[in-house]
Amino acid sequence: MTDKKLITPRKLQGFWELMPNEEIIFEDILDKIKNVFKINCFLPLDTPIVEYSDILLAKSGGDLDKEIYRFNKGDNDICLRYDLTVPLARFASMNYNVLDFPFKRFQIGKVYRGERPQKGRFREFYQCDADIIGESLPLTYDAECIKLYEPCFKALGLEVEVEISNRKILAGFFESLGLTDKTIELMVIVDKADKLSKVDFISLLKSSGLNEEQIESLLKILNAKGNFTDIIQKVKNITDNTTYQEGLSELATIEKRLQAMRMRDDTYCYNLAIVRGHNYYTGTVFEVYIKNKRNLGAIGGGGRYDNLCGNFIDKQVQGVGMSIGITRLFDILKSENMVNLQTSSVKVGIITFDEESLSYGLNLMIQLRENNIKADILSEEKSFKAKMKEANRKQIPYVIICGEDEVNSNTYALKNMETSEQVSLTLSKIIDMLIKNNE
Amino acid sequence: MTDKKLITPRKLQGFWELMPNEEIIFEDILDKIKNVFKINCFLPLDTPIVEYSDILLAKSGGDLDKEIYRFNKGDNDICLRYDLTVPLARFASMNYNVLDFPFKRFQIGKVYRGERPQKGRFREFYQCDADIIGESLPLTYDAECIKLYEPCFKALGLEVEVEISNRKILAGFFESLGLTDKTIELMVIVDKADKLSKVDFISLLKSSGLNEEQIESLLKILNAKGNFTDIIQKVKNITDNTTYQEGLSELATIEKRLQAMRMRDDTYCYNLAIVRGHNYYTGTVFEVYIKNKRNLGAIGGGGRYDNLCGNFIDKQVQGVGMSIGITRLFDILKSENMVNLQTSSVKVGIITFDEESLSYGLNLMIQLRENNIKADILSEEKSFKAKMKEANRKQIPYVIICGEDEVNSNTYALKNMETSEQVSLTLSKIIDMLIKNNE
Repeated sequence: MTDKKLITPRKLQGFWELMPNEEIIFEDILDKIKNVFKINCFLPLDTPIVEYSDILLAKSGGDLDKEIYRFNKGDNDICLRYDLTVPLARFASMNYNVLDFPFKRFQIGKVYRGERPQKGRFREFYQCDADIIGESLPLTYDAECIKLYEPCFKALGLEVEVEISNRKILAGFFESLGLTDKTIELMVIVDKADKLSKVDFISLLKSSGLNEEQIESLLKILNAKGNFTDIIQKVKNITDNTTYQEGLSELATIEKRLQAMRMRDDTYCYNLAIVRGHNYYTGTVFEVYIKNKRNLGAIGGGGRYDNLCGNFIDKQVQGVGMSIGITRLFDILKSENMVNLQTSSVKVGIITFDEESLSYGLNLMIQLRENNIKADILSEEKSFKAKMKEANRKQIPYVIICGEDEVNSNTYALKNMETSEQVSLTLSKIIDMLIKNNE
Repeated sequence: MTDKKLITPRKLQGFWELMPNEEIIFEDILDKIKNVFKINCFLPLDTPIVEYSDILLAKSGGDLDKEIYRFNKGDNDICLRYDLTVPLARFASMNYNVLDFPFKRFQIGKVYRGERPQKGRFREFYQCDADIIGESLPLTYDAECIKLYEPCFKALGLEVEVEISNRKILAGFFESLGLTDKTIELMVIVDKADKLSKVDFISLLKSSGLNEEQIESLLKILNAKGNFTDIIQKVKNITDNTTYQEGLSELATIEKRLQAMRMRDDTYCYNLAIVRGHNYYTGTVFEVYIKNKRNLGAIGGGGRYDNLCGNFIDKQVQGVGMSIGITRLFDILKSENMVNLQTSSVKVGIITFDEESLSYGLNLMIQLRENNIKADILSEEKSFKAKMKEANRKQIPYVIICGEDEVNSNTYALKNMETSEQVSLTLSKIIDMLIKNNE
C-alpha cells in the first residue's frame, strides 16, 4: 500500500489476552462471581494499578524486587501492583477513620509479576479476592470465607471441595519441640511436601532439626485428613502445647459455623498438611479444588492474617480472605471442554437487499434491540448467498429476510437456521416469538 | 504498637479510586453500558495494560512521549497504554486473518497519561469505546455508532443529544481555497474556537492565510447548526468542491439511516463546527451531550477513521467508533446529585445474641443469600444497642432479630427500619416477603 516501514504487531509475552469468543465466557464468569460477592454483602473496590514503590514493597524483603515491574516517572518511584492485598492495606490505612469495620470488600483486577512466562504462569493476570477486615474478627468470618466458595463455584456450574487447616496447629507443634525460630523454614518445607519425594522431604526436616520420633509425630499431623471428628481423634493428644490446642479449638468453632451455614459435608474436609505459601497467614488456612478434580490443583485459597496495616498505621487490623485463581480456572475450564466457545454473539441476522429494504431492516433491528434481542444487519454490501454464509459461519440461530414481498406486506420472513423452517410474521409476532426464545 | 518506622499510606496523585459506595454506582453504570453494547452485538475485548513502546508510539509524533508512562523491564521497552484505539489496531493486525470483518468490539478499561492532574483530568482513568472495523464499511455503521449513545444514556436514566458533522466538509472547503496543506492547522483552530474570543479566532484564521471573505464563508459553515434540511439549505452552495459535496452527501446518508433507526429528532442535530481533536478522523465526526446540559461539556464523541492498521500491516482497515467519557460522566452525575450514594449494600441485618442464636441466624443468613437477598450478621460481638446503631448507620432497610423466643418458636422477628413495624414470621414467609421487596 505504502513504502512505509511497518512495525510487526506483537504482544508482550505472558500477558493475558483472549479472543472475543473466549472473552465473552471469561467476563460471564467474572460477572457471576461478582454477583455472588455482592449477595454476600461484599463491597467492590478498584484501586490503581500503579502504586508508590515504597508502599508496595513495604512488606516484602528484597526478594520480590526482581519480579516487580518498577519504574520512575518524573520524581516518582512507582510499581505495577503484584497483588490486591497490599493495595487493600494501603486503602484501609488511608481510610481507617471513615471505613465501617468489619469492612467486607471484593476486588477483581489485573496484577503483574515479571516471572518467566510458562504454561499456566502469566506476567499479567487477574486476581479475584474477597476479604473481611476489622479490629477484631470472630471466627464466623473465617467460616464465611470458606463457605463463599460454594455459591461462587455453583454459579459456574461447578462443585467445590475445600480443605481446611489452621497454622497454629503446626506452629504450636514446632513450638512444643523448641523449634519456634525455625517455624517459617519448616512451614515452607511442609508447603513444598507435595513436590518432594518422601526421602527428600524427611531429609529436609532432619536438617531443620527434627529427630525421627518428631518426624513421625509431624507425619501423623500432616496425614490427618477427613471430617472434623476423624482428624481431632487422630491429633488431639500429640501435644498439649497451648498454641496447638488453640488451633484445634479454632477448627472446632469453624466446624460449628460451617454446619450452621449449611455447608454440605461432602464439600469440605480438614487437611492439616495445608499451610499456604504466604507467611502472613496466622490462623485458619484453606485451599479449594474442583470436586473430584483434585489432580487439577488448587483453584484458590486463603486464610486469616493479622496486622494487615502494620506497615502504614499504628492500628491493629486483622483480616480473613479468600481468593479464586480466575485465570487458572478459566484455563482449566477451557482445556477440560467445560466452556461453550461456540455461542454466537448475534441472535438474529437481518438480510436486506436495497435502500428501501435496508431502511426496513434497520427499523426492525432497532426494535429488536430495544427488546433486548441481539439483532444485527448482515454485511449490507454482500450478496444474499454471502449473507447466508455469514449467518452460518457466525452460528446465528435466526435470520430475518427483508425482501420486496416482505416490505410490501409489512411482514418479515423469519428463518430458523437450525431447522431451516421459514415463517412470515408481523413485527409484534416476531418480537413475541424471539423474546420467548431469548435466554 | 511497635517502634517500627511506618510508611505514610498514600496514593499517586491523579489516580482514580472511589470509595465503595461510589464504586457500587460506578460499576453499575459500567454494567449497564456493557449490556447495551452486547445487545448491539459488540464483542468484548480486554487487551494488556502494558504494550511494547514502538507499538504504542507508532502513530504519534514525539509529542505524546512526555505524557506517556514508559519504562524498561529486562530488555523490553514498554509503556502503559494511553488509549484503547492503538491496542485495537495492534490486536486487529495480529489477528487479521482470523477475525470476522466487520468486527464490532467494545472495550472498557483504564488508560494512563502523565498529564498534570487537575479537576476533571486524571492520570489513570477509564475509557469506554465501541468500534466497528472492516475492510470497507458502509455509512450505516457510522449511524449505528451515533444511535448507540441513545440506549447507553437511556440505561443510565439520561437523555442524549448528539451533534454530528463530517470532516470532509471543512477539508473540502479549505481545499477549494487552495489551503489543502493548511487543513490540519485550520482544523485545530476550528476545534479550539470554543475556547477563543472571536477576535483571537479570526486573527488566527487570518494568519493561516484566510481573507475576510473566506472567513465569512467559513463562519457560515461553522454556524450551521440544526436539523438536516436547515443546515443543507444554509451551506450547500458555498462551494462545489468534490470533497465538500461528498461530505454533505455522506451526511444525507447518515440522516436517512438515523431516521430508519428510529433516532428521535430531538436527540440529535448537525453542527458543522464539530471537528474533534484527533486528526485521524477522516469523515463522520460527532460529539455527545446530556440533553439540556450542553454547558457540562461533551461526554463523549467519535467518528470515522481510515487505515487503522497502517502502521502494522499492509492492509486497509477502516473503522468508526464511539466513546463515552465514563470517568467524566460519573463525576458530573455525582456533582449534579444524580446518583444515590446512600443505598445500603445490605438488605437484611441479622441480630444474634449467643451461640445458639448465632447458629440460628447464620442458617437464616445463608438461606436468604441463596434467594439472592443481601443478608449479613450484624457485628456478632457487639451489644444489641450497638447492632441497631450499626443497622441505622448502614441504612439497612430490614433487621431480623433471633432472640430466645424466636429460636424456641422457630420464627424470626422482622423489623422494618423505616416504619419500625415488627412482625414475627416463619422462614418461608420471611423469604417470600423479602423476595417481593427485592429490587
